[in-house]
Amino acid sequence: MSKKYVYFFGGGKAEGNAQMKDLLGGKGANLHEMTNLGIPVPPGFTISTEACVYYFKHGKVPEELPQQVEEALKRLEELTGKRFGDPENPLLVSVRSGARVSMPGMMDTVLNLGLNDETVQGLARLTNDERFAYDSYRRFIQMFGSVVMGIPHDEFEKLLERKKKQYGVTLDYELPAEALKELVEEYKKRIKELTGQEFPQDPKKQLWMAIEAVFKSWNNPRAIEYRKIHRIPDEWGTAVNVQTMVFGNMGNDSATGVAFTRNPSTGEKKVYGEYLVNAQGEDVVAGIRTPKPLEELKNEMPEAYEELLQVFDRLEKHYRDMMDLEFTIERKKVYLLQARVGKRTPRAMVKIAVDMAREGLIDKKEALLRVDPYKVEQLLHPMIDPKFRGEPIAQGLPASPGAASGMVVFDPEEAAHLAEEGHKVILVRHETSPDDIRGMARSQGILTARGGMTSHAAVVARGMGKPCVVGAEDITVDYDRQVFVARGQEVRKGDIITIDGSTGRVFLGEAPLVPPELFEEFEILLQWADEFRKLRVRANADKPEDARKAREFGAEGIGLARTEHMFFEGHRIRAMQEMILSDTEEERRRALAKLLPFQKEDFKGLFREMAGLPVTIRTLDPPLHEFLPKEEELLEELAELYFDLAGAENLKETRQIIEQIQAKENLLKRVRDLKEMNPMLGHRGCRLGITHPEITEMQARAIFEAACELKEEGVEVKPEIMIPLVSTLAELEHQVEIVHRVAREVFREKGVEVEYQVGTMIELPRAAITAHQIAKVAQFFSFGTNDLTQTTFGFSRDDVGKFLPKYIEMGILKDDPFQVLDQEGVGDLVRIGVERGRSTRPDLKVGICGEHGGDPASVKFCHRVGLDYVSCSPYRVPVARLAAAQAAIEEEQQKKG
Amino acid sequence: MSKKYVYFFGGGKAEGNAQMKDLLGGKGANLHEMTNLGIPVPPGFTISTEACVYYFKHGKVPEELPQQVEEALKRLEELTGKRFGDPENPLLVSVRSGARVSMPGMMDTVLNLGLNDETVQGLARLTNDERFAYDSYRRFIQMFGSVVMGIPHDEFEKLLERKKKQYGVTLDYELPAEALKELVEEYKKRIKELTGQEFPQDPKKQLWMAIEAVFKSWNNPRAIEYRKIHRIPDEWGTAVNVQTMVFGNMGNDSATGVAFTRNPSTGEKKVYGEYLVNAQGEDVVAGIRTPKPLEELKNEMPEAYEELLQVFDRLEKHYRDMMDLEFTIERKKVYLLQARVGKRTPRAMVKIAVDMAREGLIDKKEALLRVDPYKVEQLLHPMIDPKFRGEPIAQGLPASPGAASGMVVFDPEEAAHLAEEGHKVILVRHETSPDDIRGMARSQGILTARGGMTSHAAVVARGMGKPCVVGAEDITVDYDRQVFVARGQEVRKGDIITIDGSTGRVFLGEAPLVPPELFEEFEILLQWADEFRKLRVRANADKPEDARKAREFGAEGIGLARTEHMFFEGHRIRAMQEMILSDTEEERRRALAKLLPFQKEDFKGLFREMAGLPVTIRTLDPPLHEFLPKEEELLEELAELYFDLAGAENLKETRQIIEQIQAKENLLKRVRDLKEMNPMLGHRGCRLGITHPEITEMQARAIFEAACELKEEGVEVKPEIMIPLVSTLAELEHQVEIVHRVAREVFREKGVEVEYQVGTMIELPRAAITAHQIAKVAQFFSFGTNDLTQTTFGFSRDDVGKFLPKYIEMGILKDDPFQVLDQEGVGDLVRIGVERGRSTRPDLKVGICGEHGGDPASVKFCHRVGLDYVSCSPYRVPVARLAAAQAAIEEEQQKKG
Repeated sequence: MSKKYVYFFGGGKAEGNAQMKDLLGGKGANLHEMTNLGIPVPPGFTISTEACVYYFKHGKVPEELPQQVEEALKRLEELTGKRFGDPENPLLVSVRSGARVSMPGMMDTVLNLGLNDETVQGLARLTNDERFAYDSYRRFIQMFGSVVMGIPHDEFEKLLERKKKQYGVTLDYELPAEALKELVEEYKKRIKELTGQEFPQDPKKQLWMAIEAVFKSWNNPRAIEYRKIHRIPDEWGTAVNVQTMVFGNMGNDSATGVAFTRNPSTGEKKVYGEYLVNAQGEDVVAGIRTPKPLEELKNEMPEAYEELLQVFDRLEKHYRDMMDLEFTIERKKVYLLQARVGKRTPRAMVKIAVDMAREGLIDKKEALLRVDPYKVEQLLHPMIDPKFRGEPIAQGLPASPGAASGMVVFDPEEAAHLAEEGHKVILVRHETSPDDIRGMARSQGILTARGGMTSHAAVVARGMGKPCVVGAEDITVDYDRQVFVARGQEVRKGDIITIDGSTGRVFLGEAPLVPPELFEEFEILLQWADEFRKLRVRANADKPEDARKAREFGAEGIGLARTEHMFFEGHRIRAMQEMILSDTEEERRRALAKLLPFQKEDFKGLFREMAGLPVTIRTLDPPLHEFLPKEEELLEELAELYFDLAGAENLKETRQIIEQIQAKENLLKRVRDLKEMNPMLGHRGCRLGITHPEITEMQARAIFEAACELKEEGVEVKPEIMIPLVSTLAELEHQVEIVHRVAREVFREKGVEVEYQVGTMIELPRAAITAHQIAKVAQFFSFGTNDLTQTTFGFSRDDVGKFLPKYIEMGILKDDPFQVLDQEGVGDLVRIGVERGRSTRPDLKVGICGEHGGDPASVKFCHRVGLDYVSCSPYRVPVARLAAAQAAIEEEQQKKG
Repeated sequence: MSKKYVYFFGGGKAEGNAQMKDLLGGKGANLHEMTNLGIPVPPGFTISTEACVYYFKHGKVPEELPQQVEEALKRLEELTGKRFGDPENPLLVSVRSGARVSMPGMMDTVLNLGLNDETVQGLARLTNDERFAYDSYRRFIQMFGSVVMGIPHDEFEKLLERKKKQYGVTLDYELPAEALKELVEEYKKRIKELTGQEFPQDPKKQLWMAIEAVFKSWNNPRAIEYRKIHRIPDEWGTAVNVQTMVFGNMGNDSATGVAFTRNPSTGEKKVYGEYLVNAQGEDVVAGIRTPKPLEELKNEMPEAYEELLQVFDRLEKHYRDMMDLEFTIERKKVYLLQARVGKRTPRAMVKIAVDMAREGLIDKKEALLRVDPYKVEQLLHPMIDPKFRGEPIAQGLPASPGAASGMVVFDPEEAAHLAEEGHKVILVRHETSPDDIRGMARSQGILTARGGMTSHAAVVARGMGKPCVVGAEDITVDYDRQVFVARGQEVRKGDIITIDGSTGRVFLGEAPLVPPELFEEFEILLQWADEFRKLRVRANADKPEDARKAREFGAEGIGLARTEHMFFEGHRIRAMQEMILSDTEEERRRALAKLLPFQKEDFKGLFREMAGLPVTIRTLDPPLHEFLPKEEELLEELAELYFDLAGAENLKETRQIIEQIQAKENLLKRVRDLKEMNPMLGHRGCRLGITHPEITEMQARAIFEAACELKEEGVEVKPEIMIPLVSTLAELEHQVEIVHRVAREVFREKGVEVEYQVGTMIELPRAAITAHQIAKVAQFFSFGTNDLTQTTFGFSRDDVGKFLPKYIEMGILKDDPFQVLDQEGVGDLVRIGVERGRSTRPDLKVGICGEHGGDPASVKFCHRVGLDYVSCSPYRVPVARLAAAQAAIEEEQQKKG
């Protein structure tokens, strides 16, 4: 039984179609599709991927193949009236590889196959252009020699250069026919020298060698590497497309070009293309001649132009998408050589999807599915002009998208100061800490030498919607000298740099930026998303400004308001330190009382911005030592004081210095007491609230007083109090008791009652595992997938830079699990937590407030495991809305299909 | 319908029995049981716990109660021929509380109830002893006044003291009858003054007041606190025992005493007791007169003695256990007042269980269940003589059982040095690090000021079977001054201290120690354990000595050999540092090649000791910075070198110092590079083996070369290679590939093949959750429950001291989860891991090698979730064997019942 390996297309009929990409590859399937549509496509045939698979399995081509190719060739000769190897009217073909997905690294193209010492003369006669014929032959030998016979490209280039010198010309096309004839001979000779083989004169032999070369290119090292990275199965194999040559360089009534059916940059509904008269495809790419805008073809070849527009329109309607097309006009006759769905900018992606839905070409759901939420994120930040071609001086992790330029500043205080004076600054640090918040907030962007995608700098910057590059291991920061060195280049304080948080690149100087644009179609798309999504979308926001921004972007509440950020500003940090340094509960309470009014005002601000929507406030989370100065700083300050002491001039001064020393020593002792080996797993979260219940009390009081006072003003407040880092039911019970008690107290004092909920973060594996217990008390869960990822993997996000990049490079992990939720591991704990929690409390409200809440794949996962909401940084709210809609639509489609 | 609240016992018949502890309390149930057995017990009745429960529910005693008590009293009067309040022949009773379990904090006892101004005279006449009668009355008023009427005990003591002064005597019993009469009046007056109430003269009123006092004592703060700590439900309530008084102080034919049916200290099968002639129970306890050994009663009252022995024998046979008994002889008549199963030393526990089984009193299974594995551990270490009454100077955590004395040394090197010179030393540190191993190994014991039960010091000390007290927060260590301060007391280097690792106490000076004894019955018990247990027991051992010890204790292989400890000794640490400092893989390989022969010899030693048994070797686990000096040390050394440089006398010296400085700076740079925020979650475990595959290669080579060479010598080797800290299948695949490749290489080189297995630690939540994937490659799992507990709870065991003690005190956690496996959380992950792992590979071998492998409750859990083996420190192997047997027997019994 003979298996079919060869699929013919031509004469308005093809054996394949666009659905057969697995068998015919992407390129081939579209050639068949177009042929069937009656689009003028040069006829040819596709050798299926199965032949390639057979080839690798058995080390030879299938037995049936030669005869099938022979038959296809015969059909081709009949259809074109030309013959393979016929000196009078030679059939020339192109041979191209084509896998299911486009794959760099494989053999690309051999053109003009079928030329030899005899047919080249026929071609010269037919075209009446000897130079053209020999140039084609020369190019063919060069391509064939390098791609099929494995000769370094260089070998041919050297001969070509010599020839140009010999003829005293500088450009290839200045060589006369005579020179090209000589070059052909020299090429053939060199091939013989290097391979011991003659350049094959038999077109059939040429064809078979090319086919095998395509097969083999599937397994060359570059292709294997590419497949490994992109997880493309080795078993797919590639197809081979053999297609009749057409020539756009047969004179001034010939041309070649490329076109998009709509503008791939803006999405505008207008064909966008370029062409060259009397040229081959290669010439357009080579950039020697400047192509003309497609519109000009209207004047030069009005009929061809009209035909092209009709073809483009048909193709777009047929494929129901914006198409990327290659065409050739051979002596006025139009041919399409390639059709594929066109790549586009994020902006065009949105506009085209919405436009097509409005045109009725697709429906809303399809429009929503067409827009990649990962790409959409870029629309929400300024970016470096895509035309900019500068060389980066360093490469880090793209921690927070958008680009920014500014002067380099190393000290956060100085950064804040300079920014207030009106300078644009980029804060450059080893890594950032909560002390640096003010400086970060005032900077245009942040660059750190250390840290991963969820390091402090990354998380805070994303929250602020500020461009940030972290873990730029290429750079060494020297605070003392106030410089950083990047790839040998020294960058000083005050020098201007540009960082691109979307790609992780760092440039010296000011790179041109393109501002973010919010536009009509984007807003329409998000409205459509809201119609379909089931997940609610909230934002992580600590400040009224952030809350306002989030609401503008469509957030339906705050899913995480961190209270600790509020403690770093101004006087507050001093009161906080006073609290930490207290020895007795009473002293602590006194210090906390000073913080209470600040916290209350903070909460009022958030409640006001989110009037009518829920606001989830997390009680104090970080370890106390984060609020104290660093040990090294204190040691330095002490050293200075001792130095001063030695030079004190009188008793009074001496006494004053000694007092200062005692205070510092006291602080130092406390800093050392609080020092932890693994602060991530240390005395923080609810553990603090349990050992220092007065902190929870103060925070609860601030929340309820704020809520009551606003309610009296007529503002609708919906506070949700969230206890962090719970690992046992007893911990939560302890904290919840305090919250309820304080609520009762405040309601009594104020004479107002406010509805509220108390819930918990699920951010430790034990909390997920014992969720059925914890749900006895928790009214809601919010998965803190940052910490949950840390503990589930045993990865410290501050240290993971030491091996995670290598893991991803080696393919041990597909993604950074701090960016994309690890669905199999961390996700399964989420699933278990939801299931067990709801087994106790069926109406348990469940959300997520880790970084993953804004990652599209993770948002979709959240939808699938039945979460009620996701919460992410304000800038990612639109992304989450879109992803949530896609998740709902995909689920619906799966249920149907 | 009348509910029964009062249960009568007396006259050879009782309404209750020993099974009715819930209703009658422990004490009451045994009084009923003895009565039924025909043992002479003073008659009485028990008011059930239900009455107490009713009392708290309704705020009053049940309606039926007064009449039932009345009837019981009547029966009592009939049976004894005495009458309540009868001045001629007064019935006197004791009133005692008695809950299901013995509970300090509740009211204990009121004796002589029924005495008043009239009956006291009757008692004087009947006993012909006025002094006795008034002393009894005085005592009764005092007890009743304080226990029932709530008058501070002190008030009576003051009057008593004044009276003694007045009469010029020093001891209570020197007061004449006259004085006691006066005292009775003064007591009554004081009661009136303080309470406004008369001391009740009506015996019935006395009785009801006493009964209510017992009820109320169930809810006094001390009792509530005790129940909270011991998780005793509030709903249980207490019973009240009202029992006829008998008097051991009615002359020289009366006596009172206590006895154990066997020696509670040694377990010897011989009654062990003490008595006092003409005395009441109080007197035995008060310690004013020295009791005589029970044997002497044989001479003083031969008949009573014989009767007692018979009763004891009957009771022991009846209860099938060693009994703790109280008796009184009133005018030659023997009465039993209390019977309960006797407390005993661990040694006696073992001996009695084995003896009783050999006597046929119980079977082997019961013998095994009778021995508390937690107590057994103490038998394996020397301990402080229980008679020693010294006052500890500090209290820490009991990290590794056993006691040791020695001179205080702070520097590990010095400790090792002094030990080698023959001194006994106790190493005292803030905390220990791997650098200190040698000093630890040479010391008698280790004391640290910081750290928890699984800190470095604790884990290593347990592994070494060395006494260790950690986290003694009372002490402040000052390395500079070479002293530590404990509760204000300064202890200097060279001072002798004793530490008790079983209790966490630290004593100044040399406390008397009792050596550990391995004895026949213990070995028999363990053999029996082996007959029943299904879990295999292996040991964690890194050195041949440890392996030998483990095998002596019955270990069936090594479940965890840590390879990193091997790198700290002598030259090895230098080669290790060289490896870490290398910039290229080639340099690293050269350094590793130096380590290979050492590792090979290490493994040979282990394989030899464990010939025929499996040896599980874990590849390198700790982060590399553990092998480098600490940053602070380097900074100090550098400071010194710079100081030297300033004083260098010539060029040569200058050059040398500069070279040294460069080397140190280089080291410092690397130390800083390797610094991590959370080393526990950092670059360690298989992450090292993946970024530095040459380390895994070297270790695999050392294992296989050792195995092949020993096999050629005829030693049976069963290596199991274990990859640590795996969180994804891909990590394990990467490491396993290396192991298999090296195995093939070595087998080819040596011409010998050895069977081996490759498996993984499951010590991260993700590994447990994705166990079905990991089991595709892993041939065995070993749960590393130390790290799994850290990550599941998000607790750093190095830092947990900051809140865990408080958590346990507050009852938020019942146990330290690093000691006792958290079955609900961590345990559920273990269960999930086993289930999912075996779903892929049904014959997957699964063990545990965390600290929990030696904790009895955790061992039982391991049995229940179907583990194949536990692995623990050598000294805990017998403990684990016993616990494993109990688990199997308990399971069998549960299936039956």
